Amino acid sequence: MKRITLLLALATFVMTSESVAQKVNSEDSTMLRNIYDMALLNGKSYDWLDHLSNKIGGRLSGSLEAEQAVKYTEAELKKLGLDKVWLQKVKVPKWTRGIPEYAYIETGPGKTTLTNICALGGSVPTPDGGLKAEVIEVQNFEDLERYGREQIEGKIVFYNRPMQADLINTFEAYGGCVDQRYAGAMEASKYGAVGIIVRSMNLRLDDLPHTGAMSYGDIPIVDRIPAAAISTKGAEYLSSTLKLLPTLKFYFKQNCRAFPDVDSYNVIGEITGTTYPNKYIVVGGHLDSWDLGDGSHDDGAGVVQSMEVLRMFKELNYKPKHSVRVVLFMNEENGLRGGNEYAAQAKLKREDHVFALESDAGGFTPRGFSFDTDDANFAQIESWKPLFEPYLIHSFTRGGSGADIGPLKDDGIVLAGLRPDSQRYFDHHHAANDTFDAVNKRELELGGAAMTSLIYLMDKYGTKSELTNIKK
Amino acid sequence: MKRITLLLALATFVMTSESVAQKVNSEDSTMLRNIYDMALLNGKSYDWLDHLSNKIGGRLSGSLEAEQAVKYTEAELKKLGLDKVWLQKVKVPKWTRGIPEYAYIETGPGKTTLTNICALGGSVPTPDGGLKAEVIEVQNFEDLERYGREQIEGKIVFYNRPMQADLINTFEAYGGCVDQRYAGAMEASKYGAVGIIVRSMNLRLDDLPHTGAMSYGDIPIVDRIPAAAISTKGAEYLSSTLKLLPTLKFYFKQNCRAFPDVDSYNVIGEITGTTYPNKYIVVGGHLDSWDLGDGSHDDGAGVVQSMEVLRMFKELNYKPKHSVRVVLFMNEENGLRGGNEYAAQAKLKREDHVFALESDAGGFTPRGFSFDTDDANFAQIESWKPLFEPYLIHSFTRGGSGADIGPLKDDGIVLAGLRPDSQRYFDHHHAANDTFDAVNKRELELGGAAMTSLIYLMDKYGTKSELTNIKK
Repeated sequence: MKRITLLLALATFVMTSESVAQKVNSEDSTMLRNIYDMALLNGKSYDWLDHLSNKIGGRLSGSLEAEQAVKYTEAELKKLGLDKVWLQKVKVPKWTRGIPEYAYIETGPGKTTLTNICALGGSVPTPDGGLKAEVIEVQNFEDLERYGREQIEGKIVFYNRPMQADLINTFEAYGGCVDQRYAGAMEASKYGAVGIIVRSMNLRLDDLPHTGAMSYGDIPIVDRIPAAAISTKGAEYLSSTLKLLPTLKFYFKQNCRAFPDVDSYNVIGEITGTTYPNKYIVVGGHLDSWDLGDGSHDDGAGVVQSMEVLRMFKELNYKPKHSVRVVLFMNEENGLRGGNEYAAQAKLKREDHVFALESDAGGFTPRGFSFDTDDANFAQIESWKPLFEPYLIHSFTRGGSGADIGPLKDDGIVLAGLRPDSQRYFDHHHAANDTFDAVNKRELELGGAAMTSLIYLMDKYGTKSELTNIKK
Repeated sequence: MKRITLLLALATFVMTSESVAQKVNSEDSTMLRNIYDMALLNGKSYDWLDHLSNKIGGRLSGSLEAEQAVKYTEAELKKLGLDKVWLQKVKVPKWTRGIPEYAYIETGPGKTTLTNICALGGSVPTPDGGLKAEVIEVQNFEDLERYGREQIEGKIVFYNRPMQADLINTFEAYGGCVDQRYAGAMEASKYGAVGIIVRSMNLRLDDLPHTGAMSYGDIPIVDRIPAAAISTKGAEYLSSTLKLLPTLKFYFKQNCRAFPDVDSYNVIGEITGTTYPNKYIVVGGHLDSWDLGDGSHDDGAGVVQSMEVLRMFKELNYKPKHSVRVVLFMNEENGLRGGNEYAAQAKLKREDHVFALESDAGGFTPRGFSFDTDDANFAQIESWKPLFEPYLIHSFTRGGSGADIGPLKDDGIVLAGLRPDSQRYFDHHHAANDTFDAVNKRELELGGAAMTSLIYLMDKYGTKSELTNIKK
């Protein structure tokens, strides 16, 4: 009899545990399904992006468009009925491209071939009449050392190391190349180069030059040399022509200009938490963009997906335990001033940030997330994988998160980045074809839904670090 | 002592097994890496597709373009140094669109609004002067029954059930809608309708009508009614205008025509197997396409990816154990004559087909494969998942394979279909924007590499059904 009672008790226990597990699981499954339904059937992100891209356009820090984007997103967040919406002041650099750049390859008197270039962001201009010099092609900084001042002085250095096409993750290929763009002028000027031309960070062969940030380090302004990107087809043409005629000359003229810093803003909205109002979860993207396209993928997509997270919580009447903030960072592209300022203010106010998620890898079909966290948190995150399977979110990796949320990093916080399919990203990145028509509505919406789902789970179950701290 | 010996023997056995497992694994990993490197660094598929799409164009069965595609792919396969390349004769239907269709909505005398339509494939033409009638909007065949002959007779039936946007797999959404296109005319004519207009199978709102196959069943030719697709924006406009003015009239004129069957061909190439020359593995796509675009995604992509499998085997000097055939099927779109003929000939010649893989879901980033097979085979296939992980191929599901290889189905054969990301497929499917520029080179190449990898593994390890048969 006793044995039977025990068995019955055990059976009851097992059944209860199972029911609880099933309930939790089924409650979460239902919530994710509701999130995806709302994103795909009644999403708002695509309309917001249409406005940012087509009504405003490229939003370089310090530009009129960046200012308009601040006002527009602030107004849109205010319409959502959040608990708070505010602007956080940030001083940002102001650099303008001026009238379009102009370049040609000269193979003899009167024999010139036009080629497409654009100034790198932050470059000094060429002299008013342009700059013409012989060209020396290199693959990397070791080549500079090998050739030395003797062969480099007075020339334009042409960095032509392509992105590695055999890497499946194109961001890895970008990481393996971008030193040429970022530090190419700084390094080449040490050997007396008069300018640099960099092969665009693009896996395709096409005619579009791709801009992006560069640094002169601590080189005095008068010693800085102009730097431009050349399209991949232009780079191939220049390289093959150089083989035939090493003494050809390259001419370029650019009219970019740096101004003193100006005021701008991070745009922030918050749903205050019901249980932990003083613990913060952040979701964000960056509001600024480069100026050649309209910044739809980089990072209009991340901006509207982040706004969508809070909109969907409101619409679905989900009241988060933690305070959930959308932060639209200013100046990711050429300064990271917004990300730094947000983190500085959070530290100053001793705000306890437990989780931050950034979307800054394009509005393509989401494949998963990358997490910057410890084993315990990652194990919890991995336990949620089955919930994401119906939505084809399969890749949960450890690694970086996002540039803007990076400054929030400390022992306690879990950082994450949305990881969309990366194959087409660098076809558009920082180029004139980063435009609204290159974004697919469903792909954009699926990204927003995946982000909302992750934040829902993080909010509901809390991070492991947070639980440890609470126990303490 | 004995015990130690036993332990040692056991240890040796364990180590040996492990080494064998590791060797197999490492050999396969290396092979997959080589396949992907070749596809991404020295691929040929994109060039082939450029020719098929831009030099030849849409390849409707029986057209000059379809004939050119047969000749071109035969010639290209011959260049690869395969063991055999041949054409397999197939009688195909010949249907032509004629001069472009023309349609408008008439809301009053002289008040007309143009709208974009295209004839469905196989439709009869309208009378020479076009067809004008009142419109009745329905969502499905049950609506036809509900309205009955009384309300339908003499009218144009407008099928307006949209694709379901909340389904993650867009092919499911297509499957839930396509009955309107395929059987809409047949069903509506039972109630005396004079024509049908079908909302395009497209998840986007845009101005492009999407064609596709339809059937009149056994309705006599004289009783057949013309059928056209209207763009999704046109469908929305027609539907909302109908609500305001139920007596509006719709006019359309189409000039399509059916001709007697003509000769065409499946194009086949083979690398003869070293161990099992009489056992066949097939990889293929379909050479024909609709006529509105150039058929780059549907199914130029599948054609060139399939050709790439055999090219890479040759280039990598991999000599398959089984005979591996690339089959470029003719007439998948409006008849499936090529797929049926290939299977009929295989049966006639008692060719033992062990595995067939089709790519016919667009040249987008591959996500995995769908398999039509039994538990034992699927278990073996799932054991290969880790090999595919570095390439972000994660989805191994059971379900359909491909239309062209379907007729090969029997107890022994394993059938599979490549499953690329499906979000953008129906933006282009059977429409004027299924064009070369909508295909990304890397995405196309990754699909070919995934297919080559799967065929390599299937060839090396054999199917489970085959092993069972060998034991018998």
